[in-house]
Amino acid sequence: MFGNTFGRLFRVTTCGESYGGGLAVIADGVPAGIRLTNEMIQEELDKRKPGQSELDSPRKEADIAKIFAGIGQEGLTTGAPVGIIVHNVDMHAIHVEQYRKVKHLFRPGHAEYTFFVKYGEHYDWCGAGRASGRETVGRVAGGAVAKQVLLRENIEVLAYVKESFGIKARDMGFDEVKKNYRKNPLNCPDLAAAEKMIAKILKIKEEGDTCGGVVEIIARGVPAGLGEPVFDKLSATIAHGLMSIGAVKGVEIGAGFGVARLKGSECNDPPYIKNGQIRFRTNNAGGFLGGITNGEDLVIRMAVKPTPTISIAQDSIDKSTMKEERLAAITRRDVTICPRIYPVAEAMVRIAVLDALFMWKGWEALQKKS
Amino acid sequence: MFGNTFGRLFRVTTCGESYGGGLAVIADGVPAGIRLTNEMIQEELDKRKPGQSELDSPRKEADIAKIFAGIGQEGLTTGAPVGIIVHNVDMHAIHVEQYRKVKHLFRPGHAEYTFFVKYGEHYDWCGAGRASGRETVGRVAGGAVAKQVLLRENIEVLAYVKESFGIKARDMGFDEVKKNYRKNPLNCPDLAAAEKMIAKILKIKEEGDTCGGVVEIIARGVPAGLGEPVFDKLSATIAHGLMSIGAVKGVEIGAGFGVARLKGSECNDPPYIKNGQIRFRTNNAGGFLGGITNGEDLVIRMAVKPTPTISIAQDSIDKSTMKEERLAAITRRDVTICPRIYPVAEAMVRIAVLDALFMWKGWEALQKKS
Amino acid sequence: MFGNTFGRLFRVTTCGESYGGGLAVIADGVPAGIRLTNEMIQEELDKRKPGQSELDSPRKEADIAKIFAGIGQEGLTTGAPVGIIVHNVDMHAIHVEQYRKVKHLFRPGHAEYTFFVKYGEHYDWCGAGRASGRETVGRVAGGAVAKQVLLRENIEVLAYVKESFGIKARDMGFDEVKKNYRKNPLNCPDLAAAEKMIAKILKIKEEGDTCGGVVEIIARGVPAGLGEPVFDKLSATIAHGLMSIGAVKGVEIGAGFGVARLKGSECNDPPYIKNGQIRFRTNNAGGFLGGITNGEDLVIRMAVKPTPTISIAQDSIDKSTMKEERLAAITRRDVTICPRIYPVAEAMVRIAVLDALFMWKGWEALQKKS
Amino acid sequence: MFGNTFGRLFRVTTCGESYGGGLAVIADGVPAGIRLTNEMIQEELDKRKPGQSELDSPRKEADIAKIFAGIGQEGLTTGAPVGIIVHNVDMHAIHVEQYRKVKHLFRPGHAEYTFFVKYGEHYDWCGAGRASGRETVGRVAGGAVAKQVLLRENIEVLAYVKESFGIKARDMGFDEVKKNYRKNPLNCPDLAAAEKMIAKILKIKEEGDTCGGVVEIIARGVPAGLGEPVFDKLSATIAHGLMSIGAVKGVEIGAGFGVARLKGSECNDPPYIKNGQIRFRTNNAGGFLGGITNGEDLVIRMAVKPTPTISIAQDSIDKSTMKEERLAAITRRDVTICPRIYPVAEAMVRIAVLDALFMWKGWEALQKKS
Repeated sequence: MFGNTFGRLFRVTTCGESYGGGLAVIADGVPAGIRLTNEMIQEELDKRKPGQSELDSPRKEADIAKIFAGIGQEGLTTGAPVGIIVHNVDMHAIHVEQYRKVKHLFRPGHAEYTFFVKYGEHYDWCGAGRASGRETVGRVAGGAVAKQVLLRENIEVLAYVKESFGIKARDMGFDEVKKNYRKNPLNCPDLAAAEKMIAKILKIKEEGDTCGGVVEIIARGVPAGLGEPVFDKLSATIAHGLMSIGAVKGVEIGAGFGVARLKGSECNDPPYIKNGQIRFRTNNAGGFLGGITNGEDLVIRMAVKPTPTISIAQDSIDKSTMKEERLAAITRRDVTICPRIYPVAEAMVRIAVLDALFMWKGWEALQKKS
Repeated sequence: MFGNTFGRLFRVTTCGESYGGGLAVIADGVPAGIRLTNEMIQEELDKRKPGQSELDSPRKEADIAKIFAGIGQEGLTTGAPVGIIVHNVDMHAIHVEQYRKVKHLFRPGHAEYTFFVKYGEHYDWCGAGRASGRETVGRVAGGAVAKQVLLRENIEVLAYVKESFGIKARDMGFDEVKKNYRKNPLNCPDLAAAEKMIAKILKIKEEGDTCGGVVEIIARGVPAGLGEPVFDKLSATIAHGLMSIGAVKGVEIGAGFGVARLKGSECNDPPYIKNGQIRFRTNNAGGFLGGITNGEDLVIRMAVKPTPTISIAQDSIDKSTMKEERLAAITRRDVTICPRIYPVAEAMVRIAVLDALFMWKGWEALQKKS
Repeated sequence: MFGNTFGRLFRVTTCGESYGGGLAVIADGVPAGIRLTNEMIQEELDKRKPGQSELDSPRKEADIAKIFAGIGQEGLTTGAPVGIIVHNVDMHAIHVEQYRKVKHLFRPGHAEYTFFVKYGEHYDWCGAGRASGRETVGRVAGGAVAKQVLLRENIEVLAYVKESFGIKARDMGFDEVKKNYRKNPLNCPDLAAAEKMIAKILKIKEEGDTCGGVVEIIARGVPAGLGEPVFDKLSATIAHGLMSIGAVKGVEIGAGFGVARLKGSECNDPPYIKNGQIRFRTNNAGGFLGGITNGEDLVIRMAVKPTPTISIAQDSIDKSTMKEERLAAITRRDVTICPRIYPVAEAMVRIAVLDALFMWKGWEALQKKS
Repeated sequence: MFGNTFGRLFRVTTCGESYGGGLAVIADGVPAGIRLTNEMIQEELDKRKPGQSELDSPRKEADIAKIFAGIGQEGLTTGAPVGIIVHNVDMHAIHVEQYRKVKHLFRPGHAEYTFFVKYGEHYDWCGAGRASGRETVGRVAGGAVAKQVLLRENIEVLAYVKESFGIKARDMGFDEVKKNYRKNPLNCPDLAAAEKMIAKILKIKEEGDTCGGVVEIIARGVPAGLGEPVFDKLSATIAHGLMSIGAVKGVEIGAGFGVARLKGSECNDPPYIKNGQIRFRTNNAGGFLGGITNGEDLVIRMAVKPTPTISIAQDSIDKSTMKEERLAAITRRDVTICPRIYPVAEAMVRIAVLDALFMWKGWEALQKKS
């Protein structure tokens, strides 16, 4: 497993799993002079905390972030890598035994199987280690560091639930989204659509089933010119980051897959001049031309699959005998991961944008602002 | 511009543009002992040649690939990086003058604008340099090298047009696709659908407009276990590679954005045993669990936007005056890029798969086969 | 500061400083199935502990290593990144105030000045943060992980003091070095020379001065074939790793700078056959031909400068006034860093060798041994 | 072979060997707006041309550099990667046959053996491919691109022969070196010492033997603050680059290995104020503190081993029979590589310095100067 680092100049390296001592992130490339507190990290981590509503797993995770490196005596960053750790709370033994009982059976739709193929019998069967959503603690903590640097540059990134099991939120601009997106447990700023979504989700929950959805990310204030052609376009590194989140099966930008049904004359965003700046009348491009930012809002969506763990018995394989078996219902899980995955999406986009900004501005310029 | 390298252990670095001396690729990480000829590279390059049908730009590109490095006296690779160059054919002067005349006007939907923002007035306005589709010559040549290594491992990758302006090909397995996908100029193996697509495209062409579509890539024979969690999952590096292709606005895997409308009980692919191996009854996962290959065919789709250059006048900006202007019709271009972009998709997936295979197997094992 | 990661496939990322919460390392690329305990890490960390003899700083660092990630329920690695943290012990306040008092004066020969230039006034003046030798805790912990993987492959790496203020140890083979190198506080296996070195060092200590030396690293059991031409030769990545250690001003391999005084007929190591294998009668090459290992012991030396902190007043600059000042004597420091830097050298060579081994063997082969 | 790229933001990727079609470099990360001509590249390549004096191999290499990518219609860089190719001149067949006759015998001291181990029987035995000094054509061409960017920043890098078979040039400052270093075929600015060196070298040549030496590199105008702690200090990336050059067995900075014989009070460079800037009275540090540049000249030396090919019969191994054999005298080679390796050293230092400068300044600032 070599792939636990994301970014080039702003670079996040993570480790940790559900049933070890804790999870950590090292964020490298943080300019000196930025105020960074445990509370700033905690605010982001709390967004992905389970048990916040009846949509989530009832599991309790009291994730307390502690910055242990990279902060000077005045509480500001020093230019050194920032280290953050989240200790796992105990009550271990019971859960380990629960996992041990079923560790011979692969859960359908779960990465446990491929981890077994790749890492062999010593893979982490207990909560499935790095294949668990718990892995994203490190991403979110790293993204919280990026957030503070981006805020100094007036760049804001937010993510929200755009679609849930076929019900779509209407299209809204950045300001309306920002105003409303935290107003319900689903994190959907179209409050009317959210009600319908939640009713539908609860019905699926009653069936013992799960569902997925679409999360949209909007970034405002990103300057034109970010991204490195031809392979490291910012659109490509963002797609890399988002597709690396467990459960994500698709990423699209601007009009996305809709471009397959547009004519060129419809798809091209007409440019015009506003306050002496070039702007675009529409945003089918989602803020990117040739993978380089064009000054408009970045608009990106990702498809999130239904939680694979369900309360319905399924076909499985017993890995010790290599025989087909049935896996009984499992009851504790999120009926939909969407309302907990959005802060992860925010984190990945923040990291990718900051990384690209570094290439453009350099260390000296980003630091001078302090 | 720092982003002209893709891959980590099998690594492709490209350069070149339409109106310089030529385009080149350096493919690093090629095991010794593989037969590699100019013809093998040419075969792939010819797939992206324009002027093959009435769907393409009438421009003629006699792209002749020449391997100039990395091949020993017996015609086999030596373990050294393989260098391939494609010289641009002449008739330069006329085109340069054509471009010079309109270089003050940004073409809507084109990356020229962001290249100007990023690189300033010295950006390559002549054919727009690396923002031109011609850049993909290097990708395709690099992918042709990867193809030969993958063939020794019995890994096949093919791409075809799945959807064109709203008309979809029916779902087909690898074998049927392979048999039929080169039978029409659109590279669509559903021959009946292809006819409708072509009729529609020609109609759009008459209107002076353009259209996009969806390209699907299938990879067969990819062993289970490839991809590096958590950030460098193979699904993520493939998304990176495909999204880096100009005109691509979305990437999805398996059921893709369709997962947003599936329940967990529908989306999970039930495992079973076939010849002592674990297989899956469906492939909503598109061959990936947790971003690691699961032994099934990889199934990936990308959304391709309509060619931005159209034969209809559009709003534009004069960059020298920063005033709004009209850009007159431009006549020479592909009505749809889909039938020429599929070899680029094949190339990117091949490079990403071979790169992941190297991490898994190591240099010694991949080379021993020779 | 973006440079806190070393290695490509086996990759170590570190953070932490003297006066924050602690220091940590994330070691990525660890195969599953390896037994790894806190004690194994501790053993290496203890080698660099100060206060072990009158040669070292009297400062006490009770560095307790704790693995918090990457280990499964059976105490074996899982293939996930290994996280290790070393908490800083308290008694902070006093030292912080000591540093605060002199923070306006640059210490000659110390990196504090360049850190100030690079990171500005918010650089970590308290113990000088990442410019302190304390930074190497993370390197040594990461190297301890590499050590366990290498031991399974029968690769041993050891480092010792070869020269101290002009007194040289005689040349010895791997076995004699291994037998004796931990027998004195200087870590010099030539026991007679060590006595003279120590006497000399103590005399310099009395003068309030400091001195440097040369550390030699020998690696046994490294298979032929490691290293990636032309830029990532193993000799080059090792030089990178060693030169990145604070206080190191030179790296040489085999005959090293001595080659400048050899003829080709003397410098070439004559090959012969031993047990059907090609071996070399001499080892001027230090185990490398063309930067690729040739099967002989790797022999590498690095030059270590005298500790810059001395008990003699020196010229300095007051950074707040930009005026020339005198910096009074500082009493607490190592008179020579050599006996504490050797485990860092071992760590860097282990990381570089394991990284190259991964490229050669691949993940699958290295893991299978478990 | 994956290691054919050097640098991170300014990045050079090379390919090619003696008996293929040619050698090439792709230089990525070149700001737009820089004048770059074939002549500028040629000037650097000519420095490493053989046959310039009786010290060199009589082989003729008419290396003509041709930039084929990355230059716009006005002759300025466009921000796209710069591609440069040097075609091999013909007369192939004769040499190939000469190599074929002796390809079963390993040349002592030559990388051919390890290339055989690594790449197997299909390694490039004809001139030994990438293990040949001819590989450096790509490095020098890439360094020539870096040179033009650095000149705009008033950074000058030069290398010269400091020592040859035990005869040392006296210490000289940058200006004296610059004035005299190209005045003799050895490239040694101490004209008196050079005479003695040349006499000695010619005597060794008569014996049929070869010799090595030491090359010193000085860089003037490098701003303070470059280099990324803790692993990617500029001193470390330069050591990486220089040690990757074939025949180099050691790298040292400032006082180098001499620090082992200095006391702290002698080794520390006393700071003072000159024109409001901090400067240092001596330069034992060689321009680096903590691996970050301190504003003084960079002073770096590398040890160059004697050419392994000699006119004296030596022990060898027949690789087809794995029996010990004698290898007869070979007559055509450089008696010392020093006068041809110095431009390679210049190139590597330029690339590493520019790469570090990019991280510090960012793309935007470096480009604006144009």
